Amino acid sequence: MRGVVLNAPGEVQVVDREDPTIVEPTDALVRLTATCICGSDLWPYRGVEPADHLLMGHEYVGLVEEVGDEVRTVKPGDFVVGAFAFSDNTCQICQAGYQSRCVNGGFFHGTIGTQAERARIPFADGTLVATPGTPDPDLIPSLLAASDVLGTGWFAAVAAEVGPGKTVAVVGDGAVGLMGVLSAKQLGAERIIAMSRHTDRQALAREFGATDIVEERGEAGVSRVKNMTDGLGAHSVIEAVGTQESMMQAIRSTRPGGHVGYVGVAHEGTALPADELFFSGIHLHGGPAPVRRFLPELVDLIWNKSIDPGRVFDLELPLAQAAEGYQAMDQRRAIKVLLTV
Amino acid sequence: MRGVVLNAPGEVQVVDREDPTIVEPTDALVRLTATCICGSDLWPYRGVEPADHLLMGHEYVGLVEEVGDEVRTVKPGDFVVGAFAFSDNTCQICQAGYQSRCVNGGFFHGTIGTQAERARIPFADGTLVATPGTPDPDLIPSLLAASDVLGTGWFAAVAAEVGPGKTVAVVGDGAVGLMGVLSAKQLGAERIIAMSRHTDRQALAREFGATDIVEERGEAGVSRVKNMTDGLGAHSVIEAVGTQESMMQAIRSTRPGGHVGYVGVAHEGTALPADELFFSGIHLHGGPAPVRRFLPELVDLIWNKSIDPGRVFDLELPLAQAAEGYQAMDQRRAIKVLLTV
Repeated sequence: MRGVVLNAPGEVQVVDREDPTIVEPTDALVRLTATCICGSDLWPYRGVEPADHLLMGHEYVGLVEEVGDEVRTVKPGDFVVGAFAFSDNTCQICQAGYQSRCVNGGFFHGTIGTQAERARIPFADGTLVATPGTPDPDLIPSLLAASDVLGTGWFAAVAAEVGPGKTVAVVGDGAVGLMGVLSAKQLGAERIIAMSRHTDRQALAREFGATDIVEERGEAGVSRVKNMTDGLGAHSVIEAVGTQESMMQAIRSTRPGGHVGYVGVAHEGTALPADELFFSGIHLHGGPAPVRRFLPELVDLIWNKSIDPGRVFDLELPLAQAAEGYQAMDQRRAIKVLLTV
Repeated sequence: MRGVVLNAPGEVQVVDREDPTIVEPTDALVRLTATCICGSDLWPYRGVEPADHLLMGHEYVGLVEEVGDEVRTVKPGDFVVGAFAFSDNTCQICQAGYQSRCVNGGFFHGTIGTQAERARIPFADGTLVATPGTPDPDLIPSLLAASDVLGTGWFAAVAAEVGPGKTVAVVGDGAVGLMGVLSAKQLGAERIIAMSRHTDRQALAREFGATDIVEERGEAGVSRVKNMTDGLGAHSVIEAVGTQESMMQAIRSTRPGGHVGYVGVAHEGTALPADELFFSGIHLHGGPAPVRRFLPELVDLIWNKSIDPGRVFDLELPLAQAAEGYQAMDQRRAIKVLLTV
């Protein structure tokens, strides 16, 4: 089969890879319908993380072709959406809702790589969710978004305790930040402040439910948010970047007792001053999103056309042109690239 | 009146200070019955924080002598317990339960200094809680503990989401850590692991409800906690020290999705690695405890003799011998020193 490999930073290649097979009785084989490129894929692409013949991709939807003997909830022919991390969904950590930290789980990125024609999905019952039927093609982008960016934005909103009557600020206008806006709207936020300086992303943020746009960053951005909230800061802040600057912007934009939900992948060297954190009095929660916790609900919302997260994809390319997709995202010509298989 | 001043690091003096008077119509004047020395007082005492003729003390109980025209809930003759921070208890932040960050509030430490014979209490209605009657002398230590160490340990336990069925680890065996143990017990924790290497403090921790003692610190301590919790870590961890080491020990002892409640005053230079925090998947909440939120409940528990936090005081001295009290705590000869006025 064909699949994307990052040979070295900047060197994306679509190569022939061995066809996956059932290894464990809990596995499923999925023929992928669509996959995509994640903002986090740009870290090794840019050389910020090591990249040596990495198997890329962790977002996917497709048709089940074959299942192991112990798989119970999905069967050949089912259309499935899967989380970007695999999980047994039965261990204590999964049962507490933290499937991305399953004691038997793992990540597709670098090991299985779902930017490919087919993929072996470990713990199929604990990782995949079948849709009620075969989806119309126009639902595919939204279902694919649920695999990571929507699930991650949703987790950030839940971690930030977004809810009715609350003011929410969103730091980061990438795909995850925009999904955070959509999630905040869906979870009933009263006011949603999108922090963005790109006109096209501002427009999409407004479509997804943003009530206000703040273009300023850093201290100026914090001041704007405070001025809009009686000088107190937002009740809930979604952080969707992962840099030192964005974390501090998020923390400082939150009122004492408020909540920061952070999902931008933090990188080595980023450090939070504990004294400032202490006196801020905020709640901090985040990390790799346990997408599987939310998948049944998100698939339902998409199936019923209550939400349309697929609009976050603004470029669609065949898998063979993956390299072009990486370039477009790296150069910020695209928010998020869908690869058809 | 007489009051404690820290002239310079290590130089505690009891001096004549001007008698306080009613300044604002929301003030109360309280003749203090007892006050005490806090672990956080040792920071300027040791020169870790600046100390230049600092008015010391922020914990207090006593009798109301006089109130301003707008005070409604306490009156002359009432015995009162007050929070270590003053608060109007009416602003949005107070109403959300974060009275220690009241928009009109402030701290007694360094400004008013309650290691004294009398004190002006700003926002008496929002800061003080009157007891149902004049307490028996044996209740005084426990009521005084509610002013800070109990309220702070309680907040840490609430922030760590302690509850029935949960395993709680407590990092720090000072007064606040021990109060965290008592609070965890009262809040229904199933298992309470006190991390302590001092025999006397271990004994007190057991009296307060600890089911297990771990003497190891750092990585060895983390391993012990993990071994006791199916390799996962505790559900809830109370951090009551405030150093880099103790914060990392707390974070690493917590299972993914678990909660750290941190109340050890963090100092400049302490920094949390954001990448480790991200992948830990924990919840982090803490800061200066909003003691006033919990005071009515804590006073009630003490009044009904459901809890006996006053046992944390293991040295009692008259105010005039404050310097000896500081020495005893600095040299770890005493856990916590009560000063009678």
